[in-house]
Amino acid sequence: MTRRRQIYEGKAKILYEGPEPGTIIQYFKDDATAFNAQKKGTISGKGVLNNRISEHLFTLLATIGIPTHFIRRLNMREQLVRQVEIIPIEVVIRNVAAGSLAKRFGIEEGTTLPRTIIEYYYKDDALNDPMVTEEHIAAFGWASQEEMHDIADMAIRVNDFMAGLFAGVGIRLVDFKLEFGRLFDGEYARVILADEISPDGCRLWDLKTNEKLDKDRFRRDMGGEAEAYQEVARRLGLMPEDDASVLDLDEHRKSRGK
Amino acid sequence: MTRRRQIYEGKAKILYEGPEPGTIIQYFKDDATAFNAQKKGTISGKGVLNNRISEHLFTLLATIGIPTHFIRRLNMREQLVRQVEIIPIEVVIRNVAAGSLAKRFGIEEGTTLPRTIIEYYYKDDALNDPMVTEEHIAAFGWASQEEMHDIADMAIRVNDFMAGLFAGVGIRLVDFKLEFGRLFDGEYARVILADEISPDGCRLWDLKTNEKLDKDRFRRDMGGEAEAYQEVARRLGLMPEDDASVLDLDEHRKSRGK
Repeated sequence: MTRRRQIYEGKAKILYEGPEPGTIIQYFKDDATAFNAQKKGTISGKGVLNNRISEHLFTLLATIGIPTHFIRRLNMREQLVRQVEIIPIEVVIRNVAAGSLAKRFGIEEGTTLPRTIIEYYYKDDALNDPMVTEEHIAAFGWASQEEMHDIADMAIRVNDFMAGLFAGVGIRLVDFKLEFGRLFDGEYARVILADEISPDGCRLWDLKTNEKLDKDRFRRDMGGEAEAYQEVARRLGLMPEDDASVLDLDEHRKSRGK
Repeated sequence: MTRRRQIYEGKAKILYEGPEPGTIIQYFKDDATAFNAQKKGTISGKGVLNNRISEHLFTLLATIGIPTHFIRRLNMREQLVRQVEIIPIEVVIRNVAAGSLAKRFGIEEGTTLPRTIIEYYYKDDALNDPMVTEEHIAAFGWASQEEMHDIADMAIRVNDFMAGLFAGVGIRLVDFKLEFGRLFDGEYARVILADEISPDGCRLWDLKTNEKLDKDRFRRDMGGEAEAYQEVARRLGLMPEDDASVLDLDEHRKSRGK
């Protein structure tokens, strides 16, 4: 492994300078945090699974025309992505009431929403990521109105596609978080999907049993986090039937070349 | 005083059935609450002043074409208004950072916002009036998108007019809250301005000294609430130079007939 410059270390990922200008390496850690990092822990193998799941989802989304930062997976825990300027807004798409929305409006968790709701949260740990509206985003200049228009359009398309994909493997897409970034081409910038899509930032429930297959198992001390993430990967066809080791799968593929 | 049916008692007002169908009498109390009624008290003479100030502002807003529920003031503490179906959204228009917005985004109170921000809060004491977006409003059916469009348009016009009005009497309109209601005409309903506009729901600062002339004096235990409300009325030309008694003014006018 060559020496690389670390650009940023977040809660679940480390970003390194990529091999070429305009590229970044995303390294997926096993670290898990919740409630603005007040709760901390690790989920064994999470980084490997999220790297693989996110690769799969970004690759599929590209096929329907969603521009993303994903270039290719490099190894078990790393993927090469385009360097973008992250827009400091977490975009949350909700199909079913759960988590903070259920609490905020006194709605029972699991209630299907009358329609999909898109929420925006300002990414700022010190402020505890407050929910914001397009008014705040425009007033404080966090994104332009054109950018927010593109983001909302993409969020709806990603939701439709992912809801279908997960429904096909017996999973309800309850809600999920997206992040977007600006890809610069000279003066011109366009918005593309960035960050990751994984059970860290999605609520995924088994369609029949409502069993949680996501980070809520960690948030709520339910146990079985690693198994839940593995189950999502397995249903998406990313694990061999003998899913004893995602590591073996990974090394096997790697040995066949990039 | 004839016997009247009480329709609703709120924190600062009581609503009675009006003399004709489709009318309501708003009675203004001196009761003051803050922080979702966790703090309670009274501001002596507040009801009289708010009744008068709100009459004045609604009358002026009607002159620029803002449809309102206001018909006429009946006496010191009561005004006759059109019966509407209140839309359960508090519309907050902010020109300067203060209160919850200053706290939420870590902005110093008194900072002029880069542009005016409109916020919506769902009126539900049990949920502590959560901030909501047009997404939540549409999904839960609290108002239609046409209604929200009309509301946003009116909110901007009311803000421009009131900012000018108050600037003319040496007051900065920091932020304020509006409520709207549906006025039915058979099947058809249109949205009109309802409730009240008074120092209970506005932040009004002296332009030169930044002295607070509003309910924050009560919220923050600063004292001088009654004097602040009187000062607003005085600057708006609603009190005689000898402002010893707003009551006298009122009785004087009343004696001249409606």
